Amino acid sequence: MPAADTAAPPFWSPVVAGLQPYVPGEQPRMAGLVKLNTNENPYPPSPRAIAAIEAAARGAHGGLQLYPDPQAQALREAIAARHALSAPQVFVGNGSDEVLAHAFFAFFQHASPQASPPAAGEPLLMPDVTYSFYRVYCGLYGIAAQPQPLDARLRIDVEALAARAAAAPCAGIVLANPNAPTGIGLPLAAIERLLAACPHRVVLVDEAYVDFGGESAVGLVAKYPNLLVVHTLSKSRSLAGLRVGVAFGQRHLVEALERVKDSFNSYPLDRLAQAGAQAAYQDEAYFAQTRRAVMDSREGLTLGLEDLGFEVLPSQANFVFARHPARDAAQLAAALRERAVLVRHFARPERIAQYLRISVGTPAQCDTLLRALAEILA
Amino acid sequence: MPAADTAAPPFWSPVVAGLQPYVPGEQPRMAGLVKLNTNENPYPPSPRAIAAIEAAARGAHGGLQLYPDPQAQALREAIAARHALSAPQVFVGNGSDEVLAHAFFAFFQHASPQASPPAAGEPLLMPDVTYSFYRVYCGLYGIAAQPQPLDARLRIDVEALAARAAAAPCAGIVLANPNAPTGIGLPLAAIERLLAACPHRVVLVDEAYVDFGGESAVGLVAKYPNLLVVHTLSKSRSLAGLRVGVAFGQRHLVEALERVKDSFNSYPLDRLAQAGAQAAYQDEAYFAQTRRAVMDSREGLTLGLEDLGFEVLPSQANFVFARHPARDAAQLAAALRERAVLVRHFARPERIAQYLRISVGTPAQCDTLLRALAEILA
Repeated sequence: MPAADTAAPPFWSPVVAGLQPYVPGEQPRMAGLVKLNTNENPYPPSPRAIAAIEAAARGAHGGLQLYPDPQAQALREAIAARHALSAPQVFVGNGSDEVLAHAFFAFFQHASPQASPPAAGEPLLMPDVTYSFYRVYCGLYGIAAQPQPLDARLRIDVEALAARAAAAPCAGIVLANPNAPTGIGLPLAAIERLLAACPHRVVLVDEAYVDFGGESAVGLVAKYPNLLVVHTLSKSRSLAGLRVGVAFGQRHLVEALERVKDSFNSYPLDRLAQAGAQAAYQDEAYFAQTRRAVMDSREGLTLGLEDLGFEVLPSQANFVFARHPARDAAQLAAALRERAVLVRHFARPERIAQYLRISVGTPAQCDTLLRALAEILA
Repeated sequence: MPAADTAAPPFWSPVVAGLQPYVPGEQPRMAGLVKLNTNENPYPPSPRAIAAIEAAARGAHGGLQLYPDPQAQALREAIAARHALSAPQVFVGNGSDEVLAHAFFAFFQHASPQASPPAAGEPLLMPDVTYSFYRVYCGLYGIAAQPQPLDARLRIDVEALAARAAAAPCAGIVLANPNAPTGIGLPLAAIERLLAACPHRVVLVDEAYVDFGGESAVGLVAKYPNLLVVHTLSKSRSLAGLRVGVAFGQRHLVEALERVKDSFNSYPLDRLAQAGAQAAYQDEAYFAQTRRAVMDSREGLTLGLEDLGFEVLPSQANFVFARHPARDAAQLAAALRERAVLVRHFARPERIAQYLRISVGTPAQCDTLLRALAEILA
C-alpha cells in the first residue's frame, strides 16, 4: 500500500487503507493450459443458455440500449420454480460474491451496545478454514469475525459452533457447505442444529458447490426464518463467465437484501445474464448430465491421486483437497505450473499449507494432471 | 417498511431499516410503448458490440464456464486509449451506479473527530437537486449530505459550493455535469474552481450525459489529484442493458476503488459485458453518428415543446426538463401514459414538481410525444 503512505491518505476513506482484498485464482491467457485452479466447470454451459444470450444480444426482447428488468422477475421465477419456492423468496445478484457482500451488510452488522469504545459489534461465527472472502467482507463492513477451528479431520465443528452461538450474542453464522477448500460436506441435520442454536440471527449457508453431491438446505427455507442459502451459477451451471448468484430465504430476508441492492445498484444483472441464466435453469437434462460427469471424474481423480500416494479429503464438491506425505505442496504446484497445469495452493493458514486444491476437470484434463504428477514424483 | 416493525428486526442489520432505496424509472413490458422515461438511447448499440457479444457467448476467447478477467484489462486499455490515458487511470464496474457506490465508500466516509457523539462525519457537498442516488449512497454508508441549493435558474451554484468547501472541512463534492434532471451543463472552468476549493478531498464529477454536448473533465485528470470523473456506457454508447460504468482518476484514486471492488466482488463485469463494451469503444464512427442524431432530435424536441407553450431548460444531455405554465406536470405525465408515452415526473423536491423529464427519442418518437401533448393541451 505505498500510496497510503504518501499522497493518497487525504483522499481515501480511513477504512480503505485497512482493507485486505480477496485474491482470486489467477486467470492467465495461455494456450493449452490445463486450468484446475479456480473450480470452473470443465464443460461449457447449456447450448440453450448460449442461444438465449445470442437472442438477447440481437434484441429479441428489447435491445441492449434498454435497461434490464431491475427485479429480474422472469429469472427469479425460473429459479423459484426449480426449487418449489416463489419469486419473493429468491434474490439474485452479480455472482454469489455480490450476493454474499449484500448479505453481510444486511444481516451481520450488529453493534454491541456494551462495547466501550464502540467498535466492531457482536462477532460473526465461521469456521477458521473456509472461503476466505468471508473475512474480507468482515473487513469491508466492520464486522468482527470469530473463527471456530475445524476438527482434527478438517471438518467443521458443528457442536462447537452451536455451543458458542447459544452461549453469547453473535452476529450470525456463515459457512460453506460443502466447505471450501476442503470439499467436505455437512448433513442437513448439522445445518438444523446451527439454525436452532442461533434463532435470532441469520445462518448463512453458502452452497456454491452443493450440486456435486452435497445436501442442500433450500428445502428448509419455509421452516427457518433465520436461514439464508446462497447458490451460484458459476460452478454446476458452467456460467462463471456470466456472474449470477442467488440467495434463498423467507421474504423478510429477501426484502432486506433488496433494500441494500436498491441502495447500491438497481440493475446488477444485465440483459444477457438474465436471459442466459434463465435458460440454464430451464435445461435440467444438461445440468444433470454435466454434474454427473464431474462427479464421475472426481472419483477417478481421487483414485488416481491416492495411487500416487496422496491423501485426499472426501469431497462433495467439484474439486479435491489433497496432500502428499513426502512432498511440499508449494513445490508441487510450481512443478505442475512448469508443465502448464494450474492448481491452487494456499500458503495460509499453516494447517492447510501442505494441501493442493485441484478442480475436477474433464477425464482428459485429470489424466494430464495425474501424468504430470507421476512425472514430478518419480 | 412493515417487516421492520414485525418479525424482521432481529435479523436485519440496524442500518437496513433506515435505508431509502433509489427508485429507478419503470421498465414496463408493453408493446408499442414510446419510452422516454429513463434516458435510454433510442438507437441500438454498435453492430460491432453485438457481434463481439455473440462471439464471446460462443466462447471465442474462452467459454462462459471460465471466469472473466477480474481486472478487465483489455477493456480498460481500450477506454484509456480513447481518452489518451493509461489503463491504471481507468476503473470499470457494473454500471456507473456500482462505480459511484464504490467511490462513495472509498472517498467520502470521513469521520469528524470533533463530533460528539461520534456520528456521520464531515459532510459531502452536493447540489440540492441532482441525481437522487447520491443521497441513497450517503444513507447506505453513513455519510452526512450537505445540499447546496440550485440558483434561481436551476443552475448549480458553483461559487456557493466553492465557498462552503473552502470554509470548513467536508468529505468532498459530488455533482452531475450536465446535471440531472435539469440537463444544464457547467463549463470546465467551474469544475476547476471546485477542484481548487477542495484540494484535500475528492471532487466527483458524474458525466453520465456529457457526450451529448457537455464539456468533459477527463482531460483534467493529470492535473488534479483530487478529480474523479465517472462515465457510463448506458447513454451515449446505447448499452444500458449491458451494465458498464467507468471512473477516471489518478492512480491513487483508482487504487482505492480497486481495493474496495476486490473486497466486494472480484468479477463485476462478465465476459459478454467486457467484450461488448470494448467493441463499442472501438467503433468511434457509430458513436459520433448516434450522439449527433440524439443532439439533433433534442433541438427539434425543444422547439416543439416551446411551440406548445413549454418552458424548456437549456439541455446538454439526452433529455430535456420542461414545464408548462398552465398545466400540472403529474397530470400531464398521467395523460401521456394513457396514450402509451412514458416520461418521468419527480414529485419531490417541490421546486421541480411542475417539470417533466423527457428523454430524447428518435424523431418519430419525439413526434408521437409532441402530438400526444398537443392533444392533451387542446
